[in-house]
Amino acid sequence: MAATTVIRNIGSLATGDPQLGPGPLGVLRDAALVIDGERVAWVGPTGLAPAADTALDAEGRAALPGFVDSHSHLVFAGDRTEEFNARMSGRPYSAGGIRTTVAATRAASDAELAATLDRHVREALRQGTTTLETKSGYGLTPEEEARALRIAATRLEEVTYLGAHVAAPEYADDVAGYVDLVTGPMLDACAPHARWVDVFCERGAFDGDQARAVLTAGVARGLLPRVHANQLTYGPGVQLAVELGAASADHCTHLTDADVAALAAGSTVATLLPGCEFSTRADYPDARRLLDAGVTVALSTDCNPGSSFTSSMPFCVAVAVREMGMTPDEAVWSATAGGAAALRREDVGRLRPGARADVVLLDAPSHVHLAYRPGVPLVTDVWRRGERVWHR
Amino acid sequence: MAATTVIRNIGSLATGDPQLGPGPLGVLRDAALVIDGERVAWVGPTGLAPAADTALDAEGRAALPGFVDSHSHLVFAGDRTEEFNARMSGRPYSAGGIRTTVAATRAASDAELAATLDRHVREALRQGTTTLETKSGYGLTPEEEARALRIAATRLEEVTYLGAHVAAPEYADDVAGYVDLVTGPMLDACAPHARWVDVFCERGAFDGDQARAVLTAGVARGLLPRVHANQLTYGPGVQLAVELGAASADHCTHLTDADVAALAAGSTVATLLPGCEFSTRADYPDARRLLDAGVTVALSTDCNPGSSFTSSMPFCVAVAVREMGMTPDEAVWSATAGGAAALRREDVGRLRPGARADVVLLDAPSHVHLAYRPGVPLVTDVWRRGERVWHR
Repeated sequence: MAATTVIRNIGSLATGDPQLGPGPLGVLRDAALVIDGERVAWVGPTGLAPAADTALDAEGRAALPGFVDSHSHLVFAGDRTEEFNARMSGRPYSAGGIRTTVAATRAASDAELAATLDRHVREALRQGTTTLETKSGYGLTPEEEARALRIAATRLEEVTYLGAHVAAPEYADDVAGYVDLVTGPMLDACAPHARWVDVFCERGAFDGDQARAVLTAGVARGLLPRVHANQLTYGPGVQLAVELGAASADHCTHLTDADVAALAAGSTVATLLPGCEFSTRADYPDARRLLDAGVTVALSTDCNPGSSFTSSMPFCVAVAVREMGMTPDEAVWSATAGGAAALRREDVGRLRPGARADVVLLDAPSHVHLAYRPGVPLVTDVWRRGERVWHR
Repeated sequence: MAATTVIRNIGSLATGDPQLGPGPLGVLRDAALVIDGERVAWVGPTGLAPAADTALDAEGRAALPGFVDSHSHLVFAGDRTEEFNARMSGRPYSAGGIRTTVAATRAASDAELAATLDRHVREALRQGTTTLETKSGYGLTPEEEARALRIAATRLEEVTYLGAHVAAPEYADDVAGYVDLVTGPMLDACAPHARWVDVFCERGAFDGDQARAVLTAGVARGLLPRVHANQLTYGPGVQLAVELGAASADHCTHLTDADVAALAAGSTVATLLPGCEFSTRADYPDARRLLDAGVTVALSTDCNPGSSFTSSMPFCVAVAVREMGMTPDEAVWSATAGGAAALRREDVGRLRPGARADVVLLDAPSHVHLAYRPGVPLVTDVWRRGERVWHR
């Protein structure tokens, strides 16, 4: 029989289930939560909590679901600190962009890539992220992309094949040829190791027709589609994502009214990545416009060494509230249940009976403090699949 | 004889002293630092480091001076989470502003106020802040202001008398009478417990003549002046600060060319508080304009429960780079040596022989990561006066 744990005296418990408490976050006050093995067994008032093998007093602190970070790029090597420093200092720098990281990643050993990924997974966990998606996309050959996915898949459940990040340097003048590779031999090598297929649909990367070819080829091999869409410019990515039933269109920074209407009518989540706009001094996506149109919005870090090197979901929540017109409740929902929707997961992102026991405790009386206290490391305890994996 | 410690293999050591290394931060690569008792005894290349009683391997991590947070309001009680939540959610809320906190603070016991202050000092320390100024200003009677300062002075070196935060509720219709109190009996009660005198010079608080009266009365009692100036509107605060030789003019959000010229010609530091603009969705001060004019700029949190409830100097660095035109080097300088200048301190904010051994180690190869990795808790180790007070 699995061990049970009861966490009592939770000042504010964001269940993420509107049937359990007020608002979209379903917030319970003076609550308790019972963990049985890997699952949540019970939530309710502390006074009614059943006994358990272990009891923990939250002393009025807030609890919320572990963050679901549905978009990161963490199989990489190399150091781009000086590129960032030059960009923010107004100094010229002959940056190679993604290709800088591609060269370093190809040159790294499996052990180096694994160690860097492990370090970032652990860093994210300390900040409350219990579900983390990551992608290939810095290898750009069949062997290198498959290697990245194998390394990721031994550590994470949510792994995405992004051979179509940019055309490999060897194909700089033959993007069509690179798409043939991505949809042919590279897909053969990668499909067994991934759940998702993704493409960077953007001027300078892959156009709408190329993106469609990448996604449909992946779907034909049993992968589920998601799209880097409408980040730097307006384009066909969002509407293609909706048409193909992609789980998520990520970035969504430049949207026409037709794009918003398509998202509202479809089942595709709009995943917003404010760390990227923060770190590139770009304009933020308009979350309010999407929410008001009825679109499901997720928040994610886009953690990568080029455009957004934050692993902090609390930071993304705070910036989304400051800059993107989200309320604190909406931002926390998008960083938990929203991320789960972007990964088509029902078992994470909410704290209700039957859900995975992925629980975060804050050194604060309410989840609102994630926006109210920007930058402050508030996460004191993290349970993942019922196991307490971080305690400060 | 005091114990000595050598920290070796520091990937990047920001000394803050341009005589020790390149740039205003005086950065040394592959460096070592020797602590002797409470002081820095030596900095230089790891290969030349002398032996010491204890040796620690930084394994390539970055070291920098402990942050000097020269502006906070941490003697308070009460909870304003719902006021913040309503403001960011666009919901009406009959907020009492500072007066809400005044009522709660007056009602709190000494022990409650001390416990809250201790918690925030500890929280700041974990984020690398080794010198922290704090103020009275939520008591607004002679007894309550003196109580706040006594509590602060037993914990912190830098304590500021801010009886002139706003007029006490009892004097809402008699600000002149309140100024008489602040410059008379309240000053008598408070002067023994503070180093600094401060005033909120702003429409709705105290005008230029009232601010001058408060500051000159404080100076006559041996206190050193600093000013809350030009936060919400243009006004006389900055020029008054320069005229009186104040150590710092804090906020500096709305500045005329004459204000900038006065700061450049005087000895007053411009202390910018980006957490405040972040949390109130206000326009940021223009650090670039000040730096280009030759003004000394400090960064600080303004940590308080109303307008800026962050205690995170790393967060302020990141926002200053994103929003205020500072380079990462400038922002880190302003958060360390700049804060020291704003407190007229020579012994903190730099890591050179003779300075206090207030040292921060980062889980990163460079101080640039404070801006490059926003929101990520990078501080792994903190020494204060030579004692290792935090280790993750």
